[in-house]
Amino acid sequence: MMSRPDVSLLDGLATTRAIRRYTPDPNRQPFRFITLRRGDVDAAPARELLARAFRQSWEVKRADLDTAGSPAEGSSRARMQATMQHYVDHLDEVPVIVLVGLERYRPANPYEGASVYPACQNLLLAARALGYGGTLTGWHHAVEAELRDLLAVPDHVALSACITLGVPAGHHGPLRRKPLAELVHDARWGRPATWLGERGQ
Amino acid sequence: MMSRPDVSLLDGLATTRAIRRYTPDPNRQPFRFITLRRGDVDAAPARELLARAFRQSWEVKRADLDTAGSPAEGSSRARMQATMQHYVDHLDEVPVIVLVGLERYRPANPYEGASVYPACQNLLLAARALGYGGTLTGWHHAVEAELRDLLAVPDHVALSACITLGVPAGHHGPLRRKPLAELVHDARWGRPATWLGERGQ
Repeated sequence: MMSRPDVSLLDGLATTRAIRRYTPDPNRQPFRFITLRRGDVDAAPARELLARAFRQSWEVKRADLDTAGSPAEGSSRARMQATMQHYVDHLDEVPVIVLVGLERYRPANPYEGASVYPACQNLLLAARALGYGGTLTGWHHAVEAELRDLLAVPDHVALSACITLGVPAGHHGPLRRKPLAELVHDARWGRPATWLGERGQ
Repeated sequence: MMSRPDVSLLDGLATTRAIRRYTPDPNRQPFRFITLRRGDVDAAPARELLARAFRQSWEVKRADLDTAGSPAEGSSRARMQATMQHYVDHLDEVPVIVLVGLERYRPANPYEGASVYPACQNLLLAARALGYGGTLTGWHHAVEAELRDLLAVPDHVALSACITLGVPAGHHGPLRRKPLAELVHDARWGRPATWLGERGQ
């Protein structure tokens, strides 16, 4: 990491805007957060529906993974599967589930996420800054029709993500990320960015 | 803003990962950044193509805005239009243009952005932490076919965004954001989140 900057994470989130020259971007802000808080009776049916959906989705995914054989005890896949099992088994207890809506103003397309997922990332980073942790998922899609009914979500609103938030039982980072050299290409697809130097490793 | 946390923006970016319990998320990381640096002769054709595309896209957009009449001098729309005009007029001079690719492993869909736009937001926040500013756009789509040829981008890779980066001529934030109460609904669509209290204003 480079020399320590003096901008805090929260300040960064509060002040990172489109920089073109001087003025703030006129901002449509089409994302919406629907909070489903633990203990709120009005949120309970949607939370229960999601818990079932997450468990079913994980069962399907797990069976799919296991077609190649069960993971070796203590392997990273075994640990990942145990974590996922624990996650879906305890979804009822997650303090806050946030369903993220996108007010569509044109037909659905693969690039509309540019208007909603940066806000999701900001939410996760803000949670991190305040001592919470979260996960962005798409597992609500399995029960989307029923969920829309329960929450009275209008047809023009996409349900783009389902984020679970709480105090981490473990601790944060470091992340395991791919080497930068795999992620960054220079001037054309596949050309190594030699200017990365050692940071590319 | 709440009490100042002691996590810096860069540390937050480096350590915010999916929190389910203990282990790091096995991470596909399907995003790719193609850098087009000013002064790199290999990047020049793509940069020139993008500059033309941005200018054309803004001309169309501007004409569209002006169908409702020209903006009043000194109005926020007039300032926004001047900023945009300056932005596209000087695109050739932008220090770095980053084309963001997404390695698709299933058919294009409106939710695939969850795998690429959070990384774009991280890039913009990291730029902010280091004293740079940027803008995420989709204006490369107008010349996407030609751009793919120039950069040898494989068919299975989506070009999800085009980010311009440089040292801001102005300065960062504060952001003009909508009141939280408009963005956050509680337990069902449209229900006010009364627990926001004064933060909702």
